[in-house]
Amino acid sequence: MVQPFRFEIAARDGRARAGTVETPRGAIRTPAFMPVGTAATVKAMLPSSVRATGADILLGNTYHLMLRPGAERIARLGGLHRFMDWERPILTDSGGFQVMSLTELRKLSEEGVTFRSHIDGSRHQLTPERSMEIQRLLGSDIVMAFDECTPFPASRERAAASMRLSMRWAGRSRAAFGARPGYALFGIQQGSVYEDLRAESAAALSEIGFEGYAIGGLAVGEGQATMFEVLDYAPGQLPEDRPRYLMGVGKPDDILGAVERGVDMFDCVLPTRSGRTGQALTRRGAVNLKNARHADDPRPLDPDCTCPACSRYSRAYLHHVVRAGEIIGAMLLTWHNLHYYQELMAGIRAAIAGGRLAEFAAAFHAERAQGDIEPL
Amino acid sequence: MVQPFRFEIAARDGRARAGTVETPRGAIRTPAFMPVGTAATVKAMLPSSVRATGADILLGNTYHLMLRPGAERIARLGGLHRFMDWERPILTDSGGFQVMSLTELRKLSEEGVTFRSHIDGSRHQLTPERSMEIQRLLGSDIVMAFDECTPFPASRERAAASMRLSMRWAGRSRAAFGARPGYALFGIQQGSVYEDLRAESAAALSEIGFEGYAIGGLAVGEGQATMFEVLDYAPGQLPEDRPRYLMGVGKPDDILGAVERGVDMFDCVLPTRSGRTGQALTRRGAVNLKNARHADDPRPLDPDCTCPACSRYSRAYLHHVVRAGEIIGAMLLTWHNLHYYQELMAGIRAAIAGGRLAEFAAAFHAERAQGDIEPL
Repeated sequence: MVQPFRFEIAARDGRARAGTVETPRGAIRTPAFMPVGTAATVKAMLPSSVRATGADILLGNTYHLMLRPGAERIARLGGLHRFMDWERPILTDSGGFQVMSLTELRKLSEEGVTFRSHIDGSRHQLTPERSMEIQRLLGSDIVMAFDECTPFPASRERAAASMRLSMRWAGRSRAAFGARPGYALFGIQQGSVYEDLRAESAAALSEIGFEGYAIGGLAVGEGQATMFEVLDYAPGQLPEDRPRYLMGVGKPDDILGAVERGVDMFDCVLPTRSGRTGQALTRRGAVNLKNARHADDPRPLDPDCTCPACSRYSRAYLHHVVRAGEIIGAMLLTWHNLHYYQELMAGIRAAIAGGRLAEFAAAFHAERAQGDIEPL
Repeated sequence: MVQPFRFEIAARDGRARAGTVETPRGAIRTPAFMPVGTAATVKAMLPSSVRATGADILLGNTYHLMLRPGAERIARLGGLHRFMDWERPILTDSGGFQVMSLTELRKLSEEGVTFRSHIDGSRHQLTPERSMEIQRLLGSDIVMAFDECTPFPASRERAAASMRLSMRWAGRSRAAFGARPGYALFGIQQGSVYEDLRAESAAALSEIGFEGYAIGGLAVGEGQATMFEVLDYAPGQLPEDRPRYLMGVGKPDDILGAVERGVDMFDCVLPTRSGRTGQALTRRGAVNLKNARHADDPRPLDPDCTCPACSRYSRAYLHHVVRAGEIIGAMLLTWHNLHYYQELMAGIRAAIAGGRLAEFAAAFHAERAQGDIEPL
């Protein structure tokens, strides 16, 4: 018998929860951060290195993979896990978010979205049914329902219409997903910044029933204060006994604030994208390695970090390779950033387990307030 | 007492030799291939991965390092080894070759070369004395004499004048290098394709006396046949008991042919540069992973290769990441290419030790003649 998909909450601290999502491909310790592996690679990292940072699960992008190399091709090659050499769990998005961002190239209807590829201009369609099929072909462990990510800002009327379309698509996604023991389908709450619409969305999703619930439509330009206002109520509207996933979030302080408000799972391109542009994310905030002040600095980026960038190199070296456009700059800073994110999540989990998340958060904010170390 | 720089020949097979260059930073098994780490990084590789391929020594480029980040800066930071996290031997070129290639930007005199940086246009001078100083600041284990790499083709007259200038510079390099136990200075033979000029150059270098001898002015467009004609006599003109280094060579069959003619050391950007453009170098020749025939191929690049690219991925995956311009494509193919080169050198060393280099060479050529595996 296939091991079922299961979520167990081991500890609570305020609204925060720490636990484990069990899947046939391995456990996901929550709160969890999922590195983004858009095109079947976490950019500039080998999978073994991603795992070494502590990641339990990766995110893959349906939109990119369906266009190149193609979902049917990946299925013929044994699925996404084998294709990209990552045997642990993978969550895939539905493709909806990225298709919607092709504002010039797509057309939305009740049926779904037709769009043109940004790579070669070829015409494609995404519907709840096709999104479920693609995610099944990829072999995704956690499949996301197909939805429309409501743009921000949206009038109440527009937010309601968009949310209700997504709820109809959520029902079609559930029906198309079928019975797949060991695999999970997550519904996505919409409703923009309107509490009653969020409640209506949560009720509609609960009525359909999902293995987990995402909070969508945030981290789209509304700012942290507004996001936290929504997170003050949105997680509590969702079923208590299922994982809650805040899509596309975020900065370290966004994540901590969302955990304090009851969120269990996160993904964001920030650590990987920043790593490719010379920006390190550290306990003391963001550090731009391109800055000339690092050119002669023999000190490590973070003396307490055990990643290869910090344990084996000086700031001067990181500055040099970033300035010279050397690939190792992207490799080392991406590794550092992912390592920092996973250390942060491990710290958060331990704090929740120990009932000291408030102290952890106070220390976190105090350390960041110091800013980066003084120039030599 | 510092362990001296020492070369020991353990086996001979025809004109080929297998042995060890002993340095305070570790042994270099010869015939040796030195990966190129131009700007304090072997592009797209971590040093631990370079070492895992079997490399005993890296090459660094004086020209690039003097301009960015600067030799004095590297010295203040503890030297090139610490800077780039490579504790084993490093050989640096003299800067001459790359400066000479700045045809529009440099001016040659008896004293040396003045030139403008390709990065910011700033003015610099390289002389034998300054080249020795820079290589000392970098902490290079094997320092190359400053020379002019005679362009090809060159008239006999021009080749003679260029070679004699290089021989005067070789004397100045030796004088400027001084007494540095544990470090080595290599002289560079010039003379283009003229046997008597090569002999004159070898005699001049031997008279000065070096810890090793390079063969310069080859692999500059003359073609393999002409290069091998020169290598039929040039290595034998150099001192028998010192390592012989053929600069900038080369393709796998160039290397094997040069070993058969008595060469001990090599460097070339081919495996690293090819790895960044989707070209794999294998036992069966070059394979262009961009080619559409690989798109659905579940087979490894080389089923007998144990590198990460071959042991963990399909050709289809390599094709995908190369086509998508993903950094992991450069990482995996560079690793494969360096692994293949080091496997080749290990095979050559074992064949020489076993007195079966001719059989090894026959098998090498037979395997390449088969070409890449058949498309599915």
